[in-house]
Amino acid sequence: MPDSRALDAYPVRGTVYLVGAGPGATDLLTLRAADLLARADVVFHDALIPPGILALATRAQKIAVGKRCGRHSTAQRFIDKRLVDAARKYDVIVRLKGGDPMLFGRAQEEITALEAAGVAYEVVPGVTAALAAAAQLRTSLTQRGRVRSFAFATPRAGEGEDVSDWIEGFRGVDAGAIYMGLRCAPAIADALISAGRAPATPVAIVVDASLPSARTYYTTLAGLPAFAQREIGGPALLLVGPQFHRRPAISAVDAADWRALAQSG
Amino acid sequence: MPDSRALDAYPVRGTVYLVGAGPGATDLLTLRAADLLARADVVFHDALIPPGILALATRAQKIAVGKRCGRHSTAQRFIDKRLVDAARKYDVIVRLKGGDPMLFGRAQEEITALEAAGVAYEVVPGVTAALAAAAQLRTSLTQRGRVRSFAFATPRAGEGEDVSDWIEGFRGVDAGAIYMGLRCAPAIADALISAGRAPATPVAIVVDASLPSARTYYTTLAGLPAFAQREIGGPALLLVGPQFHRRPAISAVDAADWRALAQSG
Repeated sequence: MPDSRALDAYPVRGTVYLVGAGPGATDLLTLRAADLLARADVVFHDALIPPGILALATRAQKIAVGKRCGRHSTAQRFIDKRLVDAARKYDVIVRLKGGDPMLFGRAQEEITALEAAGVAYEVVPGVTAALAAAAQLRTSLTQRGRVRSFAFATPRAGEGEDVSDWIEGFRGVDAGAIYMGLRCAPAIADALISAGRAPATPVAIVVDASLPSARTYYTTLAGLPAFAQREIGGPALLLVGPQFHRRPAISAVDAADWRALAQSG
Repeated sequence: MPDSRALDAYPVRGTVYLVGAGPGATDLLTLRAADLLARADVVFHDALIPPGILALATRAQKIAVGKRCGRHSTAQRFIDKRLVDAARKYDVIVRLKGGDPMLFGRAQEEITALEAAGVAYEVVPGVTAALAAAAQLRTSLTQRGRVRSFAFATPRAGEGEDVSDWIEGFRGVDAGAIYMGLRCAPAIADALISAGRAPATPVAIVVDASLPSARTYYTTLAGLPAFAQREIGGPALLLVGPQFHRRPAISAVDAADWRALAQSG
């Protein structure tokens, strides 16, 4: 085996940008992300990045690095290596991740690899899917005096991970979002009800938030297993909490209240 | 008192956009937010929006509508009324909120008022402060196999709100962000330790994430009360969890591991 220091002899030329692509709509990219895509020499992107966003990288070679189920570990190391190799050849390397890189984006593993190789890097935050889903539903994730804490969690387990304890994260919070959870929706409903959530707790399911293809569905924890049998297509975000019922157009009390103020103003 | 239906006689002309301004850096606005600011006739903005962002609203009248401590309720109704009035006079009305409108942005109250008055509106999501803080710290909010759930909470209580139970939201999660929490940091530390968190749990404090004035500090739950005595200035975000220690430049084990792979590749 060669001396591991030999690698350090390669000059590192470029900077790797770990960039959040946002929820899907092209104009929900940040200005910084759009600028980096326009300047990129190469873009390594997740499988689900919409074509409209990739089209902004006019100069770049575009390389899909989506991971296959159950093959996480090897694939991640291969991505790490490709990022480092690219930094030796190019100036502007973009690693484009759906949503935000630091929330279920597995950015830490790439950061570790880049630091190990002495590669300069920056993280560019993005709009995570739950925020776009809230905008789509017109329902705030937090609600004054009612929903004061909000959790983000995922039941998706990688190699060597324990699937049993993720539900703990929902024990005390008022509401939450579950990423990548639709496929195990029956287990989620069971676990949350066993943990003390009311079976009638509202659940909203948002698919393709922010895209023209966006769909929203409403059910309850008790109804979630049956719902999961339906073929809805696309990556779904589950939102669980008292505010995620199908909203009436307007609360009569609030309206009367507001109108009285408007009269007096 | 006049007939409340009289208000409905006013034609509603414009659309109100509830827009997330992101964490502070101008180029962390979304493309959509920047476009709406450029087109806006009037912008109602929170007190802490940086001048560089407001400067993008070249055509607009800019109106600060920051709320005073303890005067929330009246101020909110006054903002609601101004938004509706503006929708009768202008085409593009932007209500600009720090971070994202749907996470501690109190957007629901404005949505209710706009719906009550029959005003068209849209919500434009933004990058919330915790995501920018994670980018600043180069530390992912979630960590594969280790931090699977992440909570957002605030101890800030408005009129009629109960301050005692917010800590419940942190009971089961692996890590979390506390917005607007520095002023009651001693109570936060007490409550989290009483709820079973180890006193040695790392805490990172990030001020002005994404801005040139950004500062980061590291302490522990046990050290937080003493830290809160310091005058650090600016709005601070607290991040609590095992990953929020001052990070060594690189883990020797990870580096060796990665290098071995690079050699073999």
